[in-house]
This record gives sequence, C-alpha cells and structure tokens, in this order.
Amino acid sequence: MMRAALAEARQAEVLNEVPIGAVVVKDGQIIGRGHNMRERFQDVTYHAEMLAIMEACEKLHSWRLEDCDLYVTLEPCIMCSGAIVNARIKNVYYGASDPKAGAVDSLYHLLNDSRLNHQVNVTSGVLQGECSQMLKNFFREIRRQKKAARKKRRAKD
Amino acid sequence: MMRAALAEARQAEVLNEVPIGAVVVKDGQIIGRGHNMRERFQDVTYHAEMLAIMEACEKLHSWRLEDCDLYVTLEPCIMCSGAIVNARIKNVYYGASDPKAGAVDSLYHLLNDSRLNHQVNVTSGVLQGECSQMLKNFFREIRRQKKAARKKRRAKD
Repeated sequence: MMRAALAEARQAEVLNEVPIGAVVVKDGQIIGRGHNMRERFQDVTYHAEMLAIMEACEKLHSWRLEDCDLYVTLEPCIMCSGAIVNARIKNVYYGASDPKAGAVDSLYHLLNDSRLNHQVNVTSGVLQGECSQMLKNFFREIRRQKKAARKKRRAKD
Repeated sequence: MMRAALAEARQAEVLNEVPIGAVVVKDGQIIGRGHNMRERFQDVTYHAEMLAIMEACEKLHSWRLEDCDLYVTLEPCIMCSGAIVNARIKNVYYGASDPKAGAVDSLYHLLNDSRLNHQVNVTSGVLQGECSQMLKNFFREIRRQKKAARKKRRAKD
C-alpha cells in the first residue's frame, strides 16, 4: 500500500508539487487517493492526506473512517493529524519523518493523546528510504533550478 | 465580525448541524465564510474554519492568507488550528472555549508554537456568552429529542 502512496507522490512531482502521496485503505481496498496539490489549486488544505480522506468519506458516505488505514509518504502535519483523529482512522503508516512540521512523532504525538476521544496506531519508517529520497531529489532539483536562474541573471547584468 | 460568524453558525443550526460558524477577513472585508456541514456532506473536513479558509484561498488565488484574520464561534480543533498555521493567518478571534477538543488554549497552544514557521495572535472569549449559549441550546434540544424518542419507544413496547 505504501507503493500506491509513492505512486501518488510521483503524480505530485510531475505537477512540480512537493512529492507527497497518501491512500486510505479499507478491507484491503484503496478507497481514497491523494497527492499534494497545494500550489496547483492554491489551496492550503490540499495536502495528500486531506484529499485521500475526503475521497474516502465520499466513497463510504460517512465522515467516520473507522476500520480504515492511511498510508502516507511523509509524517503528517498538525492539520492532517487532526483530520486523521477526527475521522477515527485506525492505523497510520508513514514513510519519511518531518522534523520541522511532523505532528505524529517529531513535534507532537497528536495521534496518541489520551485526552482525545480517539487514538491511532502508528507505524513509522515504512519504505522510508524511497519516500525521503523522492523528497530529497525534488528539493535538490529546485535548488539546481534556482542556482541556474541566478547564474543566468548575473550573466545578463 | 463575530456577528457574521454567529450568523454562519445559525445557518448550521438550521441544517441540524452543531452550530459553529467562521469568517475570514482581509482589509475589513469578509473573503471567506463557513459553517459546520460535517453531517450534511458526511465529510470530516467540513468544519466551519476549513470551509471559510478554502473560500478565502479561492478568492485570493493564494494558499497564503497573510494579513487575514479568522473569527470563529468555537475554539478551533487540532485540524483547523493546523490549517490556520499553514495558511499563515495573522489573528484569530474565537468565542466559546472547547475544553474537550480545543487546540488553541484548552488542550494545546498550537497557534503559538515557536518551533513552527508561523505564530498567530489569539483573542479568546469574543461574544463568548452568545457563542456558547447557541451550542448549549442545540445540545439541550438534541437531548430533549432523544428523551422524547425513548419515551415513545417505551410506550410502544
């Protein structure tokens, strides 16, 4: 299932979006897919997890995604962690860690707060190498493009 | 502006949704409105704040809502707090506190985490009496309806 999330991340990459992908799974079937489309639609809520969760809700005609699992290539942020708890997702599997904004293990443990009415089982580091390599390649390419643009500008001046 | 958020909350109430409303404001103009529609659309992301933020992004053609303020009748949850930080909203004004799920003051202080790349100015308790009374009335009515239904069922048996 993380391979399906990686395939979603690749779709984001093609759109020149930060390559993050997610799928929601129930009874072994994918019922929601999403990839980051924040820039394309200029919508701050269009994270991979949010889009996968919204599609799953539509499919099940229910905002409760009990007995559903979410696979995502990067550790969810605060917003997506909140959506995961609100939807009562059972298990979350993620690939790469996000030390700057990750809210599952890095900055917070939002999926395991006993004060909330739902807790989520978390497995981290699933296909971590591939997930983080895809992000690294993307940002390296962005830096390369920026450097080339600066060089071109300097040559013009 | 909290009156406009309360008017949104009233629209949720009419739909038999938990009455929560929000508006996003820029330069004194409302650029996004939202009221809770989770049950109606069976979508876990359809909180008042999320819908107001999405509308504001669409209006500005930008996921960055810098120099925008958000007014909401109830203290935002984790998901909505994450969206507020991600969108870089400047000021948040909320009415009633949410001791069970509020992530601005009650359970967390997510809008003021110096580790994140954005912090938000928060003002709580704006028209608190009206905001919380609307919620109390709603839940009282729900309880009344449930009690009446139980009574009816017992009379049948």
